[in-house]
Amino acid sequence: MNEYDRPVFFHLMAYASGADHDVIDMVSGDPDWESPDALRAGLRAYADLHVDDFQYPPSEGLGELREAIAERRGVDMANVVVTNGAGEANYLAMACGLAALDGDEIVLTDPVYPYYYNRTEMLGATPRLVAAEPDGTLDPDAVVEIASSATNAIVVNSPNNPTGAVYGRETKRALAEIAADHDALFVSDEVYDHLVYDEGAFASALEFDSPNVAVTNSFSKSMAITGFRVGYGVYPEWLVEDVRTRHMLVNVAGSRPAQFAVLEALGETPASYYEGTRRMLEARIDAFCDALDEAGAEYTRPRGSFYVMARFEGFPGTLSNVERLIDEAGVAGMPGDAFGESRADWLRFALVTPRAEEAAQRLADYFS
Amino acid sequence: MNEYDRPVFFHLMAYASGADHDVIDMVSGDPDWESPDALRAGLRAYADLHVDDFQYPPSEGLGELREAIAERRGVDMANVVVTNGAGEANYLAMACGLAALDGDEIVLTDPVYPYYYNRTEMLGATPRLVAAEPDGTLDPDAVVEIASSATNAIVVNSPNNPTGAVYGRETKRALAEIAADHDALFVSDEVYDHLVYDEGAFASALEFDSPNVAVTNSFSKSMAITGFRVGYGVYPEWLVEDVRTRHMLVNVAGSRPAQFAVLEALGETPASYYEGTRRMLEARIDAFCDALDEAGAEYTRPRGSFYVMARFEGFPGTLSNVERLIDEAGVAGMPGDAFGESRADWLRFALVTPRAEEAAQRLADYFS
Repeated sequence: MNEYDRPVFFHLMAYASGADHDVIDMVSGDPDWESPDALRAGLRAYADLHVDDFQYPPSEGLGELREAIAERRGVDMANVVVTNGAGEANYLAMACGLAALDGDEIVLTDPVYPYYYNRTEMLGATPRLVAAEPDGTLDPDAVVEIASSATNAIVVNSPNNPTGAVYGRETKRALAEIAADHDALFVSDEVYDHLVYDEGAFASALEFDSPNVAVTNSFSKSMAITGFRVGYGVYPEWLVEDVRTRHMLVNVAGSRPAQFAVLEALGETPASYYEGTRRMLEARIDAFCDALDEAGAEYTRPRGSFYVMARFEGFPGTLSNVERLIDEAGVAGMPGDAFGESRADWLRFALVTPRAEEAAQRLADYFS
Repeated sequence: MNEYDRPVFFHLMAYASGADHDVIDMVSGDPDWESPDALRAGLRAYADLHVDDFQYPPSEGLGELREAIAERRGVDMANVVVTNGAGEANYLAMACGLAALDGDEIVLTDPVYPYYYNRTEMLGATPRLVAAEPDGTLDPDAVVEIASSATNAIVVNSPNNPTGAVYGRETKRALAEIAADHDALFVSDEVYDHLVYDEGAFASALEFDSPNVAVTNSFSKSMAITGFRVGYGVYPEWLVEDVRTRHMLVNVAGSRPAQFAVLEALGETPASYYEGTRRMLEARIDAFCDALDEAGAEYTRPRGSFYVMARFEGFPGTLSNVERLIDEAGVAGMPGDAFGESRADWLRFALVTPRAEEAAQRLADYFS
């Protein structure tokens, strides 16, 4: 794997929009549903503020936003750093972990979220891939086997992109313990935590209150604002100063209009907004999976996030097959081989279009 | 120097605002004048866009914004990467230069903009300081003397923070040539390019069209929006792919509301806005320097930016003296020793308050 996923994204989105027939785009992870009203109101209110409010926010993020995050997550505000999306929060955890701890191996899963893999290589560390189970979950024993004194960090996302699996509390607890056993950092990326369909299936790694755990998150998916770039990390005490310093020396600070709007939305958005998103996505998943059943496809039904991986007999998940599906079936997905060898036979579909059911019907027609 | 400047900033801003008497704040580099009207209008317009426009912008920045920058700067759009402020643009140039070129020394000036120094150390490189002339300009011969096969990059900002000096065209040309001679990168940070008071004094390093030059900039000072975090770099062809990759793996993308508002402002803001800012700052500088003359202080009159460095007999530029000035004169500046040894006797005042003249009068009263 030498490519991070956005270039494949871009290529496929351009390929799909260049087609002279109708194509249903299920390539990207960009939400298509409405953001909270209070977010738009927050932007408008910000536009009218005094110019003093247009200047540098605190490097670690607006104080009120950090406070709101700390309160919601039950952590000390001093451990919270607001970042340029979860992407930067993960980068900071990985870069500072590598600088502070021994070991140059970073344990990732296969299939892997490609940013983790390529970021690991950019940082000069060695990715070690642990195969996920067929249903996308992770067996901690497989991590125990690969972990050693060379392990610097274990980085996972749950709910998982690309599989939609949700690791249970005991899996996460075990990962935190394996990290502690090897003086390593467990980076738990929880950006899809608002999109879990099994009550109680999700547990945050913050529950374990472990000095070996960093939890990262963002408002990108929960508020449908991937372009705002407002995320955060909750870092252990021994790491948080390094994180703040690196954040300052790389980015100086995050973007204040976006932080302000998120702060407003965080305070004003009712639980029913998030619940509505979940219900809407669940209905899409039902319809999409029913049509996949019809098509005789193998697939993993997501317990969280909005990705469905599917496998069609004799139709491996290569870029050229994905292009063929765009041309011949009018459906654009992502090739499974972009996420590692284990899913080379699979395709990933992002259910971020109201036409998900129609897309599945097209797939059923195409493969039948 | 083991501190980057923001913690000193924060400390002094807190110290000044905690005083029980009136203090004129000249610590930070935060503009106090109004942003362009079109910027506020751009934010309001963005708040009403479809949610699709709230999702990931292209990692390298909104296409129209890159196009507008490329056109204004007379460069190829392919070389422009929109960043999270000039801070990230400089980080990317330095990090990618270190990865791509031989040498682990980065040539900086003394006095130095502290971010450069601390970023150099964070990247594992060695800062080599070249003393600036008493008036803040840089003698290229001094750079020739220190440059060697170990030189990886030369990083300067002109108009200069903290001195207000503007390096002439021939100085910049020489720096580009020295970089080329040693297979190094000349990083020319030009964030104050709209704030130059001598017609023709400023030249962009883009003029030389050299493969050894990266030019960085931002809209933070020209539009009074340091908190928006919209900057850019123009990188040479051999470096720009590395820059795009690192930008993607660190930040994924910049913040879209801020980029959108800047794009609107860039198209709609008349030259008179920038000219008005210059005239206003020039009047402040005149008044401040006149009062410093009265106070018998030595000072450098800025030819660009909005910083004045001043020296008061027997009153070195230490943190404790700056605190004394806050307590006893009601004026808050920055200690010169935060910028390196050569200015340890000096204080830096940022003219980002309409009370600059009053502040100088207070200094005159205090020191007379």
